[in-house]
Amino acid sequence: MAGGVGSRFWPKSRNHFPKQFIDILGTGESLLQLTYQRFLKVCPNENIMILTNAGYADLVKAQLPAVLEDNILLEPSRNNTAPCIAYATYKILQKNPEANIVVAPSDHLILKEDVFIGKINQALAFAESNDALLTLGISPTRPDTGYGYIEYLEDEGARNKEQGLETEIKKVAAFKEKPVLEKAQEYVNSGNYLWNAGIFIWKAANLQKAFEKYAPEIDTLFKSGNEVYNTADEAQFIMDQYPTSPDISIDYAILEKADNIYTLPADIGWSDLGTWASLHAIAEQDEQQNVYNSEHIHLNETRNCMINLPKGKAAVIRGLDNFIVVDDENVLMIYPKSEEQEIKGVSKEMVARFGSQYS
Amino acid sequence: MAGGVGSRFWPKSRNHFPKQFIDILGTGESLLQLTYQRFLKVCPNENIMILTNAGYADLVKAQLPAVLEDNILLEPSRNNTAPCIAYATYKILQKNPEANIVVAPSDHLILKEDVFIGKINQALAFAESNDALLTLGISPTRPDTGYGYIEYLEDEGARNKEQGLETEIKKVAAFKEKPVLEKAQEYVNSGNYLWNAGIFIWKAANLQKAFEKYAPEIDTLFKSGNEVYNTADEAQFIMDQYPTSPDISIDYAILEKADNIYTLPADIGWSDLGTWASLHAIAEQDEQQNVYNSEHIHLNETRNCMINLPKGKAAVIRGLDNFIVVDDENVLMIYPKSEEQEIKGVSKEMVARFGSQYS
Repeated sequence: MAGGVGSRFWPKSRNHFPKQFIDILGTGESLLQLTYQRFLKVCPNENIMILTNAGYADLVKAQLPAVLEDNILLEPSRNNTAPCIAYATYKILQKNPEANIVVAPSDHLILKEDVFIGKINQALAFAESNDALLTLGISPTRPDTGYGYIEYLEDEGARNKEQGLETEIKKVAAFKEKPVLEKAQEYVNSGNYLWNAGIFIWKAANLQKAFEKYAPEIDTLFKSGNEVYNTADEAQFIMDQYPTSPDISIDYAILEKADNIYTLPADIGWSDLGTWASLHAIAEQDEQQNVYNSEHIHLNETRNCMINLPKGKAAVIRGLDNFIVVDDENVLMIYPKSEEQEIKGVSKEMVARFGSQYS
Repeated sequence: MAGGVGSRFWPKSRNHFPKQFIDILGTGESLLQLTYQRFLKVCPNENIMILTNAGYADLVKAQLPAVLEDNILLEPSRNNTAPCIAYATYKILQKNPEANIVVAPSDHLILKEDVFIGKINQALAFAESNDALLTLGISPTRPDTGYGYIEYLEDEGARNKEQGLETEIKKVAAFKEKPVLEKAQEYVNSGNYLWNAGIFIWKAANLQKAFEKYAPEIDTLFKSGNEVYNTADEAQFIMDQYPTSPDISIDYAILEKADNIYTLPADIGWSDLGTWASLHAIAEQDEQQNVYNSEHIHLNETRNCMINLPKGKAAVIRGLDNFIVVDDENVLMIYPKSEEQEIKGVSKEMVARFGSQYS
């Protein structure tokens, strides 16, 4: 999935060039490219599909020239993840009714790639032989209020074991929205909560059954394309029909309703890189806990800052503590890291007040 | 005089494009252009000479196309103000032994232009008929530690009156270097101290006499050019000889030694615009005492800041109090206004550490 706009990463992430296309870690490759290369270790190139907004077709083709043209699925409108995943699922089912699918965001960081691939294969094996919809669950290392949480049943895990199921895989009791700090601390202390990383593993046919049961409108819509998927008429069908789909996430549409949701706890060095602070937390820091992407930096009494500059630009900074400093194209942003949840709103306000050049 | 580098205004003022050439007030004209236009009210265009570094010849010609080519005096080296003023003085004397001269920096702000012109004419009349070297003195409005001070003799003023001299013009007792705050407060309280604005008025022949007496090395050097000034050989002479001059200011070479220095107190809305804080002090401020040059500004809990951005750039800033924020070409600077005296040193350090692209 590579259709988002990453607005909490504004002003670096913009509508015309969102976060997944940016070399945000400074490694020379975008998050999308890193994600693609990771999945090449799970399945062959011809089985990798990129789900993105129609406006990003050229960006995807430029960054991933090896991906088959027919495997780039273009969403003509932004209707959240449920229709996006349904489209891919029904198109895949038309080719291969036995397919198993991994659904993953393209803009996350996964440091322990080998562990990740092991977990994915473990989950695929479970999904192949059980009527189960799986999600990877990340063991929380701190009471983060920026993530959704998964509550799982310990006793169900034991029961699974009695039934000869893989004990690491837990039955999910509930999905929890982003909590306040106190609640998050409770979750972390309780020991049976995981972060929801938005990485799903299931048999395509089982997900279709779930759409039939819990999101019949979406099911009907995307079933009506069964005769045109993987033909010359697919693009026109999607152009016409996709925007009529409900605008809803896969979490709301399916995961929070279905009773066959499982989670596999995974310690994979994961971050959703959702915000500047999350990038700051995982990046290499200097002795004053500053993170920056320029070699020409002159800092004085400056601590715990996240500094992102255009290539070739220098910064001279004195007296900032716990700030985000981003200089990107036509925007300079200097914002307290502790208030970064406001950035998304500020970006919208800038566009409303001053125009789309800031979107 | 338009040869300085304005390094306290870094990174906006650069070696290749220093402060006097910048439209620093956002009026559409550079400080040099504003100064030139001001002096057109004092004397005709053909009597205006621009003294600058050879490297800025093209900048001067581009910004002041009406100035005569022969009136642009190019210094092949940076040897401070004494040789620069001697060169112009001796060249002028070669043409007109009776000339009176006004020497002025090209990068200052003067808000009360009519008062300024009146004072200049008053000083010129005094200099014409007295063996006096005059400097404009600015009545101090605060104990500024960034300026040099002129101590004048009240009783000498009275004695002048008895002698029928213009009473407003005072005999100078001493020049004082930039003081510490306590000293500056003493000066302001005492009532007979003025800021030294570096604006001088004298008869060229009287200044030459002072060079003969107090700076004979400079006098000999520039007298040796008397036969080539205003001929085709002048440029070669200056190229060869100018760099051999002592590197010294007119203040040290003449003013602090001569006994015929007078000052005319002038309330002309003056600022040397020497630093970002001085620009902040005179510019239009918003309700939170912020000064900025972009219309697309989103400030929150930000007070007393000086924000200078490239044309077309927006800023989103929260939580800065009393900061200078300058985004210019390859440098972003965020610095506490109270520490701005460090900026000159920081700019030198940047060049030493990272290269001349920051000079």
